[in-house]
Amino acid sequence: MIQKGLLIVLSGPSGAGKGTVCKALLPSMNTTHYSVSCTTRQPREGEMEGINYFFKSVDQFQEMVKHDELLEWAEVYGNYYGTPRKYVEDTLNAGENVLLEIDIQGALQVKQKFPNGVFIFLIPPSLDELKSRIIGRGSETEESFNRRFGAATDEMKYISEYDYVVVNDEVDNACTKVRSIITAELCSVSRNLEYYNRLIQEGGK
Amino acid sequence: MIQKGLLIVLSGPSGAGKGTVCKALLPSMNTTHYSVSCTTRQPREGEMEGINYFFKSVDQFQEMVKHDELLEWAEVYGNYYGTPRKYVEDTLNAGENVLLEIDIQGALQVKQKFPNGVFIFLIPPSLDELKSRIIGRGSETEESFNRRFGAATDEMKYISEYDYVVVNDEVDNACTKVRSIITAELCSVSRNLEYYNRLIQEGGK
Repeated sequence: MIQKGLLIVLSGPSGAGKGTVCKALLPSMNTTHYSVSCTTRQPREGEMEGINYFFKSVDQFQEMVKHDELLEWAEVYGNYYGTPRKYVEDTLNAGENVLLEIDIQGALQVKQKFPNGVFIFLIPPSLDELKSRIIGRGSETEESFNRRFGAATDEMKYISEYDYVVVNDEVDNACTKVRSIITAELCSVSRNLEYYNRLIQEGGK
Repeated sequence: MIQKGLLIVLSGPSGAGKGTVCKALLPSMNTTHYSVSCTTRQPREGEMEGINYFFKSVDQFQEMVKHDELLEWAEVYGNYYGTPRKYVEDTLNAGENVLLEIDIQGALQVKQKFPNGVFIFLIPPSLDELKSRIIGRGSETEESFNRRFGAATDEMKYISEYDYVVVNDEVDNACTKVRSIITAELCSVSRNLEYYNRLIQEGGK
């Protein structure tokens, strides 16, 4: 019997730095695989099909929803985002871990389907820092800024739905914490009890 | 208000390598302090008063028990061992973490008083390895070996009382895992919820 992999959900308000932390984490993780999301939004500069996102038309996206091919999906600022179900399930069943980087709406949907997932809430070190990150992303009108900033501060209230909170003060620190959380969860007794019970029974023979 | 420190209990069967892992861990931990136990057993070669143990006579030890000065105590192979209460409580109240290295009887007593402690069960990589470690400790008669080995395999059944299990295959690996567990626990939402709720209230003003 293969021990199922760990589903790690890295989430948090817009501007917390989820994408940056995720990108910095991946090269150092051997048995953890990044689940690439689908989106109907336009690619940003440098983003590549199948690496950053699977870029879909609205029609294509709606077909996926219809055929239950998405683990979660949401509309965020007028665009659709979703997580292809098959990749996540196949990888976990093969005993490898999956890292999802998703917004809070999506994370709460995933939690209903995978209550044993590891839910990490990434937050900026302060509200001032959050402001400058949202502004730094550029191409923001005042209206768009206010909407994002208001949503981000509102979303802080969802911390209690998560298992861990990681303050993204420095990307390296945040990565160390996320890696530590994964290591710790893999050592948790509740995730390994079946295995150890078998070991004890064999030892007693 | 100071956030209370974390009580980390490193425990496991005799021969798992608790002492070795603990010694290797301490130089790299800034805000985690080792709680020195009391014992009535004779010092082993190289062991120092106040560093490895506080060495006590049986009378002195019984006085400490009588005055409730020990967080836990136990008789193990004819000797008494105990954890001075005051040091642990003062350090936690000052917001620093405490590392206890204790046997399973003691850990279960501590768990009743500190259910929020982090309980780590250290195990040898295999029963064969456990045998050679118990033999390698030297000065063992066959009777003493059988007693220790039998107790150690019996004690494996207590895994389910713990939060984490760490396989001590290599000391460095085991230390990395224990450090990761401490880092992860310090990020846990349940330990920080009060702090974040205050932050959210302040942010909403």
